[in-house]
Amino acid sequence: MAKTVRVGIEIDAASSAELGPLIESAKQHGYDYVTTPLTNRTRQLAARLEGDAAAAVPLGLPENRAFSLDQLVLDRVDWASSVVGRHAAWADVTAKDTADYIAAEELLQRETAWATHLGLPAMILALPDLLVDVPSVARYVSQTIATASYTQLWVRASTSNEAGIQGMAAATVDEDGNWECWSLLRLLCGHAPSVALCLELTADLPDEEKLDRWLAEPIAAVVLPESVWLRNAKGYPVLSRRHQAVIHRLLSRSVEVIVRAEAPVAEAQVAHYQQYVRHLAANPPPPSHCEAFATGYQDYLQAPLQPLMDNLESSTYQVFEQDPVKYVQYEEAVYRALCDRVPDAAASETTSVIMVVGAGRGPLVTRCLEAARRANRLVRVFAIEKNPNAYVTLQKMNKEVWRERVTVVWTDMREWDTEERADILVSELLGSFGDNELSPECLDGAQKLLKEDGISIPASYTSFIAPLSSAKLHAEVAALPSPSRHETPYVVLFSAVHQMAEPQAIWTFEHPLRSSKTHALIEPRMDNKHNVRYSRNTFTLAQAAMMHGIAGYFDTVLYKDVTLSILPSTASEGMFSWFPILFPLKNPIYVPSDAIVDVHFWRRTNCKKTWYEWSVMVYEPTAPSFNVVSSRRRLIAASCIHNVNGESSWIGL
Amino acid sequence: MAKTVRVGIEIDAASSAELGPLIESAKQHGYDYVTTPLTNRTRQLAARLEGDAAAAVPLGLPENRAFSLDQLVLDRVDWASSVVGRHAAWADVTAKDTADYIAAEELLQRETAWATHLGLPAMILALPDLLVDVPSVARYVSQTIATASYTQLWVRASTSNEAGIQGMAAATVDEDGNWECWSLLRLLCGHAPSVALCLELTADLPDEEKLDRWLAEPIAAVVLPESVWLRNAKGYPVLSRRHQAVIHRLLSRSVEVIVRAEAPVAEAQVAHYQQYVRHLAANPPPPSHCEAFATGYQDYLQAPLQPLMDNLESSTYQVFEQDPVKYVQYEEAVYRALCDRVPDAAASETTSVIMVVGAGRGPLVTRCLEAARRANRLVRVFAIEKNPNAYVTLQKMNKEVWRERVTVVWTDMREWDTEERADILVSELLGSFGDNELSPECLDGAQKLLKEDGISIPASYTSFIAPLSSAKLHAEVAALPSPSRHETPYVVLFSAVHQMAEPQAIWTFEHPLRSSKTHALIEPRMDNKHNVRYSRNTFTLAQAAMMHGIAGYFDTVLYKDVTLSILPSTASEGMFSWFPILFPLKNPIYVPSDAIVDVHFWRRTNCKKTWYEWSVMVYEPTAPSFNVVSSRRRLIAASCIHNVNGESSWIGL
Repeated sequence: MAKTVRVGIEIDAASSAELGPLIESAKQHGYDYVTTPLTNRTRQLAARLEGDAAAAVPLGLPENRAFSLDQLVLDRVDWASSVVGRHAAWADVTAKDTADYIAAEELLQRETAWATHLGLPAMILALPDLLVDVPSVARYVSQTIATASYTQLWVRASTSNEAGIQGMAAATVDEDGNWECWSLLRLLCGHAPSVALCLELTADLPDEEKLDRWLAEPIAAVVLPESVWLRNAKGYPVLSRRHQAVIHRLLSRSVEVIVRAEAPVAEAQVAHYQQYVRHLAANPPPPSHCEAFATGYQDYLQAPLQPLMDNLESSTYQVFEQDPVKYVQYEEAVYRALCDRVPDAAASETTSVIMVVGAGRGPLVTRCLEAARRANRLVRVFAIEKNPNAYVTLQKMNKEVWRERVTVVWTDMREWDTEERADILVSELLGSFGDNELSPECLDGAQKLLKEDGISIPASYTSFIAPLSSAKLHAEVAALPSPSRHETPYVVLFSAVHQMAEPQAIWTFEHPLRSSKTHALIEPRMDNKHNVRYSRNTFTLAQAAMMHGIAGYFDTVLYKDVTLSILPSTASEGMFSWFPILFPLKNPIYVPSDAIVDVHFWRRTNCKKTWYEWSVMVYEPTAPSFNVVSSRRRLIAASCIHNVNGESSWIGL
Repeated sequence: MAKTVRVGIEIDAASSAELGPLIESAKQHGYDYVTTPLTNRTRQLAARLEGDAAAAVPLGLPENRAFSLDQLVLDRVDWASSVVGRHAAWADVTAKDTADYIAAEELLQRETAWATHLGLPAMILALPDLLVDVPSVARYVSQTIATASYTQLWVRASTSNEAGIQGMAAATVDEDGNWECWSLLRLLCGHAPSVALCLELTADLPDEEKLDRWLAEPIAAVVLPESVWLRNAKGYPVLSRRHQAVIHRLLSRSVEVIVRAEAPVAEAQVAHYQQYVRHLAANPPPPSHCEAFATGYQDYLQAPLQPLMDNLESSTYQVFEQDPVKYVQYEEAVYRALCDRVPDAAASETTSVIMVVGAGRGPLVTRCLEAARRANRLVRVFAIEKNPNAYVTLQKMNKEVWRERVTVVWTDMREWDTEERADILVSELLGSFGDNELSPECLDGAQKLLKEDGISIPASYTSFIAPLSSAKLHAEVAALPSPSRHETPYVVLFSAVHQMAEPQAIWTFEHPLRSSKTHALIEPRMDNKHNVRYSRNTFTLAQAAMMHGIAGYFDTVLYKDVTLSILPSTASEGMFSWFPILFPLKNPIYVPSDAIVDVHFWRRTNCKKTWYEWSVMVYEPTAPSFNVVSSRRRLIAASCIHNVNGESSWIGL
């Protein structure tokens, strides 16, 4: 969907007299605003910072708390909506000398106060190049956001630390330096959601994984310096495909764009940058079927359905019945199962019994009938549903669509007392994590309806997990009122997230339950302990990341090679019935580069409810060390075990 | 002070028939209780665990939830007070097979339920040898303590991983293995205060630092196996001096002692172990003056005094006036200052003016008069005090003790309007952290009372910090009701703590304020910004530890080499006026071995109040890595900045 975008341009006005015409010019060139320093480097402001202590007026004295007009670049309130301020670059809060850093802090404070007074939308502050300088800046940021006002604080960082690498700092900076500094700032500020990033792109963008990590940060604005712009055949500024892709992703999240057009750009060309950005905004890549369906759901937390405890509403059925993939695959699975079960030769004399358990409003019933028609097989179809409201619709469907060919039964599939036995048991009780809507328990209960050699569709389903970084989702969870918010899974369509590693399978459920030796059906344990699962998964990560939670997915084998999947790598194209699931962490864990993340996952039950528990450990492959006899990994961090005993979240049986 | 101690003995009864006589015998030998398995390894219980799945009765079925009599070692409630249970050693909750670990968990749960029913004081569960096995055990521990009952759960670990090192596990265990496993368990259990340690001592105790780290853990009981016992000349069991020292430290914290007397210990000797332990308990090392004074204050959190905002009570003065060291040193400082200031030759004609600011009930005034007498110098003494109640006592002292030789003034030292100027300004406004009772601000205000060449006693004071591990203190802070509890400093006499590194100086205040160039007195800044401080301190740690907070200390130069100190390494012997101060961390940080801990500390002010902010970063010295250009340290963890803007804790000006 096309988006409007706010586009600003960086200027360097040295005085109020310069600023007016520059704003005027920017507006004429189609920019929404300029970014500019608010103050100029007058003698009074800069003397202390330039070491001329004698000349410096003590900034902190009450009589000097107000700016004088000649110190200000921005001195008119009517310009406020056209300006995003930049904090004085020479105000070094990391200075060694106490008087120096206090003077710098005072200048920043006075700039913030002035920006707040004028009602500027934001002030931009530079992220330091070195880890050791971050705490002083983080302290200033924490102090400022703690007294949060209308004016936002944007911390500016570049996608790669070119200055740091080239400059004298090279000895202490790696190519992840900026990201590490940004991470430290976020940790020191307690992951405060109001710390926003102003991300400057570089001409050489980092590799996809590093870029992905940046794009999962809370970005308020993106800066496009002159160096990222190419020229097309007609001499107009354009972006490379990779830069375009980044801008498209950010525009979909309403990020602002700031252009930096440096000399020798001709006056006549200045407008072209914003025109190009607006062109991108007006022409986003076409949305996939799923994206079109899911507009507005990105990064929105939903409680997982409890279809066993609750009766779904008609609108919920309505949404899911529109899925263009799921029912096609179910029909194909039933079709193949019917063909396999009854040879062509016996097609006219053998009737297969199909039971659709949890039939809802009947879409799978329709597909079973269609599969039988296509396969030219005789069937008797039962539709079993516990929801009394959906049962009304099933009766109506039977009368009006299925021509009374279906036996509709209103009961809990686990409790139906009948002599009928099914050749094929069809169900769709799957959640985003596969087993999280209690498909295993329901099908255990329905298994008595199946003939000894009967077929369950689905035949199996597998849950997958991956470590996830998302400051956005962490903030969303933290903003919820429930004290158990951090120990509850959420269904969510991921957008501003960075998946730190490829998902791994954690466990599988197969249906029906058969003995591994005799292959005979076995009766489920009364205490449900056979549906308990535990898995430890090891993810080896090359790059550092802030881990905020665990992403959950599933895939399922409906019948033989007829499958469904919501795993990013194998996802069924166009299917939207399931978004992924998020298991959050109470406290984000910083994972350094080249670390090992162990995720321990439990599926537990106590006859009344089923729940998940999860915990994360971070290890390092150890280098030999003088006091270590021999070891392969070394603990460096661990979360608590979340949701012990299902005290915060569970699914009722 | 002599303590009574509960002493138990480990036995291995295989049945109820064996247990009775063994309890009887233990009692006769003077033991308070035995530790024993609660269940025996009958076929039903052990079959599943021994791989005989066919023979195993599914433990989880409701009809099998009760123990049968022949499965129980402890089957009588009247023995409950004489027994601490040991969980079945063969119940392996880390088993690979689901059915196996579920059977193991069920056995543990049933044992816990039985122990709770009987009202046993505790059950002992073994800590696994390998990190990878800890999560499964931690899950069981979390689940059990979440439904906490009278019966405690003690996790048993040995001070060194002898089994691990000797066994096949050697490839994955370093000599810190047990401690690392214990730390992981604590992390996974969310630092729950109810997880207690049952610590088994080994014959070769670890080095002092490692031992110190163990002793800072929440220890409920200590196990003394046969291997730690020596024999004295008469053949009686005794402990080495190091083992004795450990036992003395633990007995002072009411830890229980469990003896393991293995064959071939003669029946007649069994009593000797407990007799020896009780002998140690009855003969503790003599307490220091400070310990005698501070009994009951160990690990007790106190809010720091606010003597500027609040008026101290008489009892508070009473306590501190008993200090046997502080006043001696003050007298000596004044004595030397008087001697230096007035040559012997001028002693009879020159009068020195001494002002005691913040005189309280007058102990320093008395010392000044005594110093003048000893020095044979003429003095005029002023006692300035803002507390109207203390002022009454000062007048009484002047009349009855000082023979009206003192001018008593009731005023805030910062506001006294007088022409008098002091040769020597004496004050004791120091807190546990030096400047935390606002000595800098008060003396700034009093500085106008001093002659241009006058002397301040104290001349300077320096704050010190050290990273601190203390599960006990973390639990104490967490139990406080205030939401700002983790961002507030506490005065506390450390006991169950492990100081992770030697303290380092962070900043110094000197009095009076003089120009560094001209040495002339300078007027303090009205906005108090000259009393702002910032320090970054780097601690290099060899061994891993769980960091719960920062310990704060101070020392002070009263005059030349007359000093006071509460630093452990230079502490003024016998002085008890100041306990250390604790700055807690919201979330404990696990610090792996060979890491670097950076502590950033701020002293901030805003004219109305002064406060501290603190944060902790953990780095590693980096090994070269393929994707790192060049770097010397790598971030692995960081806390937030605590108490930003003094929102949680501050000292009023």
